[in-house]
Amino acid sequence: MEWSLHPQLAKLTTVVGDLALSRVLLENDSSYPWLILVPRMAGVSEIIDLDPNEQVQLLGEIDAASRALKAVATFEKLNVAALGNMVKQLHVHVLGRSSTDPTWPKPVWGLAPPVPYEPAAREKLIGAVRRELKL
Amino acid sequence: MEWSLHPQLAKLTTVVGDLALSRVLLENDSSYPWLILVPRMAGVSEIIDLDPNEQVQLLGEIDAASRALKAVATFEKLNVAALGNMVKQLHVHVLGRSSTDPTWPKPVWGLAPPVPYEPAAREKLIGAVRRELKL
Repeated sequence: MEWSLHPQLAKLTTVVGDLALSRVLLENDSSYPWLILVPRMAGVSEIIDLDPNEQVQLLGEIDAASRALKAVATFEKLNVAALGNMVKQLHVHVLGRSSTDPTWPKPVWGLAPPVPYEPAAREKLIGAVRRELKL
Repeated sequence: MEWSLHPQLAKLTTVVGDLALSRVLLENDSSYPWLILVPRMAGVSEIIDLDPNEQVQLLGEIDAASRALKAVATFEKLNVAALGNMVKQLHVHVLGRSSTDPTWPKPVWGLAPPVPYEPAAREKLIGAVRRELKL
């Protein structure tokens, strides 16, 4: 079975690029600097479905995505989460939270409608993230 | 500065035991099989505040906690998350979700009041988790 990005993830995000293990996506919501990492492995829904080497690779990519966000955006707290109650395909949210954001201090999921990016702002942010991640 | 468990985490949980890096806690909410890992390191609020070895250790403990939960409880999906918007001390939620639980498929935080355990049921669950984690 070949891996492909789940259509629901594809619908809500813009592709940033591919790290060694994961496709990096930008959530289409300008309320938060918000990346999603999706390991390109078919049939995987849990971190524990990955073997130890793959887990460590994913962790390294979470670390890199976190640092890239800190380099390109201003926020107070990282939120890192693998939930997957709606979309089973393993994906890890890495996003920055601020006490001024629309849902602070609650979790971001499902509480406020996404605020689309201006296309130019989105492209600029994606370019900056790509540079940080060497993509 | 010496590490101590944040009082808010202490208030909402029961101690399971200490792994090499993290204190393992059981959330006092029988609606979900729910562990929290708290690295015993003072002043740390983000995964990226840990050095690479500590990060890998934490990942191994997340893996162990996930497998322990699967061994002692029945659920459909793991949720793994480091949020920390309310309590800055780094802590990682590892919990099991079911389509019959009170907040499915939404995230668990802040949506439904916790349902206390019967003390005997809680002790039995903690004993089972301790055995799985060799604590």
